[in-house]
Amino acid sequence: MKALVYKGPGHKAYEDHEKPKILAPTDAIIRVTKTTICGTDLHILKGDLPSCTPGRILGHEGVGVVDEVGSAVTMFKAGDRVLISCVSACGRCVYCRQGMFSHCTTGGWILGNTIDGTQADFVRTPHADSSLYPIRDGADEEALVMLSDILPTGFECGVLNGKVAPGATVAIVGAGPVGLAALLTAQFYSPAQIIMIDLDEGRLEIAKRFGATATVNSADGDPQARVMALTDKVGVDTAIEAVGIPATFELCEQIIAPGGIIANVGVHGVKVDLHLETLWDRNIAITTRLVDTASTPMLLKILHAGKIDAKKLITHRFKFSQILEAYETFANAAKTGALKVIIEA
Amino acid sequence: MKALVYKGPGHKAYEDHEKPKILAPTDAIIRVTKTTICGTDLHILKGDLPSCTPGRILGHEGVGVVDEVGSAVTMFKAGDRVLISCVSACGRCVYCRQGMFSHCTTGGWILGNTIDGTQADFVRTPHADSSLYPIRDGADEEALVMLSDILPTGFECGVLNGKVAPGATVAIVGAGPVGLAALLTAQFYSPAQIIMIDLDEGRLEIAKRFGATATVNSADGDPQARVMALTDKVGVDTAIEAVGIPATFELCEQIIAPGGIIANVGVHGVKVDLHLETLWDRNIAITTRLVDTASTPMLLKILHAGKIDAKKLITHRFKFSQILEAYETFANAAKTGALKVIIEA
Amino acid sequence: MKALVYKGPGHKAYEDHEKPKILAPTDAIIRVTKTTICGTDLHILKGDLPSCTPGRILGHEGVGVVDEVGSAVTMFKAGDRVLISCVSACGRCVYCRQGMFSHCTTGGWILGNTIDGTQADFVRTPHADSSLYPIRDGADEEALVMLSDILPTGFECGVLNGKVAPGATVAIVGAGPVGLAALLTAQFYSPAQIIMIDLDEGRLEIAKRFGATATVNSADGDPQARVMALTDKVGVDTAIEAVGIPATFELCEQIIAPGGIIANVGVHGVKVDLHLETLWDRNIAITTRLVDTASTPMLLKILHAGKIDAKKLITHRFKFSQILEAYETFANAAKTGALKVIIEA
Amino acid sequence: MKALVYKGPGHKAYEDHEKPKILAPTDAIIRVTKTTICGTDLHILKGDLPSCTPGRILGHEGVGVVDEVGSAVTMFKAGDRVLISCVSACGRCVYCRQGMFSHCTTGGWILGNTIDGTQADFVRTPHADSSLYPIRDGADEEALVMLSDILPTGFECGVLNGKVAPGATVAIVGAGPVGLAALLTAQFYSPAQIIMIDLDEGRLEIAKRFGATATVNSADGDPQARVMALTDKVGVDTAIEAVGIPATFELCEQIIAPGGIIANVGVHGVKVDLHLETLWDRNIAITTRLVDTASTPMLLKILHAGKIDAKKLITHRFKFSQILEAYETFANAAKTGALKVIIEA
Repeated sequence: MKALVYKGPGHKAYEDHEKPKILAPTDAIIRVTKTTICGTDLHILKGDLPSCTPGRILGHEGVGVVDEVGSAVTMFKAGDRVLISCVSACGRCVYCRQGMFSHCTTGGWILGNTIDGTQADFVRTPHADSSLYPIRDGADEEALVMLSDILPTGFECGVLNGKVAPGATVAIVGAGPVGLAALLTAQFYSPAQIIMIDLDEGRLEIAKRFGATATVNSADGDPQARVMALTDKVGVDTAIEAVGIPATFELCEQIIAPGGIIANVGVHGVKVDLHLETLWDRNIAITTRLVDTASTPMLLKILHAGKIDAKKLITHRFKFSQILEAYETFANAAKTGALKVIIEA
Repeated sequence: MKALVYKGPGHKAYEDHEKPKILAPTDAIIRVTKTTICGTDLHILKGDLPSCTPGRILGHEGVGVVDEVGSAVTMFKAGDRVLISCVSACGRCVYCRQGMFSHCTTGGWILGNTIDGTQADFVRTPHADSSLYPIRDGADEEALVMLSDILPTGFECGVLNGKVAPGATVAIVGAGPVGLAALLTAQFYSPAQIIMIDLDEGRLEIAKRFGATATVNSADGDPQARVMALTDKVGVDTAIEAVGIPATFELCEQIIAPGGIIANVGVHGVKVDLHLETLWDRNIAITTRLVDTASTPMLLKILHAGKIDAKKLITHRFKFSQILEAYETFANAAKTGALKVIIEA
Repeated sequence: MKALVYKGPGHKAYEDHEKPKILAPTDAIIRVTKTTICGTDLHILKGDLPSCTPGRILGHEGVGVVDEVGSAVTMFKAGDRVLISCVSACGRCVYCRQGMFSHCTTGGWILGNTIDGTQADFVRTPHADSSLYPIRDGADEEALVMLSDILPTGFECGVLNGKVAPGATVAIVGAGPVGLAALLTAQFYSPAQIIMIDLDEGRLEIAKRFGATATVNSADGDPQARVMALTDKVGVDTAIEAVGIPATFELCEQIIAPGGIIANVGVHGVKVDLHLETLWDRNIAITTRLVDTASTPMLLKILHAGKIDAKKLITHRFKFSQILEAYETFANAAKTGALKVIIEA
Repeated sequence: MKALVYKGPGHKAYEDHEKPKILAPTDAIIRVTKTTICGTDLHILKGDLPSCTPGRILGHEGVGVVDEVGSAVTMFKAGDRVLISCVSACGRCVYCRQGMFSHCTTGGWILGNTIDGTQADFVRTPHADSSLYPIRDGADEEALVMLSDILPTGFECGVLNGKVAPGATVAIVGAGPVGLAALLTAQFYSPAQIIMIDLDEGRLEIAKRFGATATVNSADGDPQARVMALTDKVGVDTAIEAVGIPATFELCEQIIAPGGIIANVGVHGVKVDLHLETLWDRNIAITTRLVDTASTPMLLKILHAGKIDAKKLITHRFKFSQILEAYETFANAAKTGALKVIIEA
């Protein structure tokens, strides 16, 4: 089969690879029909994630058709159309029992990281019964690809952790794909204000079309002052950090209201300054989270009910044979305007 | 009347002062029968709190007898014995409506800070109906003094925010009065382990008597390693920071288990390093809080039920005329072994 | 001044009445500019509520202008435009401290019940600071009248108690004003399905326009079977009872899914059968609630953000001098199609 | 092997039976070393549970040693000592994903009900990885038998559902084994009062020794009046129904405070009267639950920490060959004083 293989920092190849095999009775083999590229894939290619070693097939998102199942898989059979979660969950360990699937002792985010991933004709999915989701007849499979990772990430790490509530004020720092996923899913809870903050006017324009009630371009002077002006000088109830650098996290510290929550979504490479000398008495909370995809069943119901237009996030489409071009497009988002790209078998 | 007055950094006096008067219909004047000294009073005396200006009577804890009430006070009358909360709460503003009394727009922690406090023969308490609590006949008033501030602080900022739960593992960094208050109140929830961490062996001994299941002296090498060894290498579900310096907060970052909560209680003067590069995917929460005393009714019930021995925290007793000596004793805790001192009228 | 006065079962009069006076320092006198009639007013007129005695001015909803305030009122002054809550809350008693304002020991639902109400030129509102809400410039006062009682009732007793959640399935039994208020406010949480159940096809039509995803006319045979068919035979996550008779409550028992919640909103006059022989092992909850109006600040924010069109509930408008005609129209809703009527000064 | 077999209403036999075999890759076979008898076993023997058909081996509690595991079992191997949960949970279905294991679509309470149970030399346990728990070296296995069913039932259905809280008032109606299990586990949360209500003075005496702060013998006149007198006329915050008949459930309705919770634990055979005409405006909740054993890991930690003396519930011990005598003793509890009986291999 064909696969996109990580060859060490700065290198990748679209090449022939052996088809995966069932290794455990709870495994399934999936023929991938649609996949996509995540910002994390770019991090791996830069060499930022030592857990991912050269030779690894990348990719942790996608939909497909079950090709074969292990002897203990009871919920799926060959021919079933399925959504692949970016997180593999055994459903039995101490973390899975708490719904913290991201920390599954034999799973978590392993696809396209410590085991081969979905940017291939076939992928082996461990713990298939609790890591795949059936696709209803007539469902839009492109929209479903957004449920592998980006929507649950924005929703769980940003919206749920941030306790977005009806009538509340929300700021989202970072209007990239994951920030926009937080923006789309924050609206499930009818906040009064969603202020989107970014440096890219193009992305802020998209944010407005996606439901932001106000936008702040951090390049235009003092974003803290702008947010304070928009919130009667109180700050926001929820600040969602969707960038992953010290400056954006500290902006969240500056705009959070007493009693508010800073929900970190960004992947951080270095420490940040936490200003406890001003925050110790402000009754705030700061949360971090690797997506658990515990909300996938809920998101599937909302998608089926037509309460979210997940396809909005898709800007480009490629055939699998064009995956190197897809990477080019996705990696140069500032120029191409790419949010999420669909790669089709 | 007599009062202990802040005279500017490094200076205080026990001197004559005019008796307070009712200023608003919701005020009460209380004759103070017992008060105490808080670590925060020492901070004020060092000049650390610019909100507290010279000439201010210090003190925000105590019990007493109602001397006079304003025309809108309906729950108390002259002669009633009352517990004075360190936080004044109007019960009507946007913060009080959420139980966040510490941020009351016309109250919060103002006693002995922005208005005259309890280290005096009489004190004016604003918002009397929602800031005083009736004392039952036969109640132990020394124990009740611990409910003005120290017990609700340890309980709300540490135990409640930290979501201490049955069977859970808890570490408390700092075995001073507030850390010990957290230790006492954490036991309301039957955690399996409470690990107390401090540099002072004497205080760790007290912690053991107060219910700590293990103690770690940070001076003996690597406290992180010690906590990991005590928790099957997982870390703790709840880490309560009760010191207020960067080193102790960072220790909490090092010992927190995936899914855990760092509950900050300490008053911080400088920023701390938040290691998001290791914590971003650990599903943790960090909380801060100025005590709201929203739990005071609950604590009163527990005290009356005999479920806590609050008097354990009291090590010394003085007459009000000896208050300067009481300050000496309290300020030199390392030498005197002082935890809380009772100052009696 | 003029007022609508309850004269004993079956009798009411629009007549002259003495203007109310400040009785406590926390009172305010409000000149009522808009009020409405509640289903409860009809109950009183039938003699169903012994707490309301002849001679009482009816009405517990409305907006107006502050005419005079007591000496302890600090948040409002003469001339302020205000929303009057149906619940008076002291903000200080044991129940108010928990946000359970409906059980305030010196308040609760007393307006137009145990003290004179809002269907008058002027009304005295006790505990003014915590029972009135300021009206922003430019706000639509007709819409605000819906926030005195009907919207918080549907929202708190139905939606909040019922824990309506994104992607969930909801059934609302009863499409009268309060059922429709639950329907409008349930949508704050983006449930996947809202099934409206009633006997009146006209009201079900309105429900569809207001956002119901399906309607079931109980007159058409078996409503339980219809709901099961709409929910993959599982039943609903939330069943909101908005009628108040045994048959509709038992329907909720029949359609609730395992793990679901029956949120009672209806005012019941007789006991109902609770089928614990089938429900004991179904992991369900049943809740009851008298509206606390604790959600009023949240509802005001949502209204101001344009997230709800509260005026949809208004079908008729009258001058205060026509209030007897307004009662006629409201009492004959089946014929007149009345939902809420506005009565204007 | 030997087994205790249900032979139809009124009949049981201790007889030879074929040893169970692995049927699915997720099964395990356990050699039972200790088991016990549950009140539900007596219900089955009366013919009350049609789901349990003649020929079934009874029993859903116990500890043992793993004899054999299916190919997909990864957490246990032959020779491991294990606690058997009364609930089998796949860990993957829609209900298990929510922690509602009792409603597992291929599990739930099936042992000794719809499949053969633990009152035998060997038992097949489906979904072994998520339905068994490892036993630590040195653990007291008699105490652990109490964790198969009775302690999680009292804790989850009574204490957790009833939201027992520090300082709160609790009433437990029914001082049988499950009521006493609720009593023991309620103390994890330090309520101020636990009032035990029963007709049997002997059991009330035991309740006092187990931590009840007051007891009420319902035979002595008016239990509602007694509870009101003990609670300042307010009623209790949590009422736990642990009998399962209309009279005891209605007593809970009479003693519940505004804002309180009635947590049903009892297995009911007939409907009860729910007095919504008095409860509709009291802001109460009523919960039902079949034990999920989701709390088993927490209970194991508490047991290991020595925070509960689970063995207190054990009154008699028998060899497995004496199981018919054990049934006699357990069924005649009024005479024998039996709570839980241990049956040892």
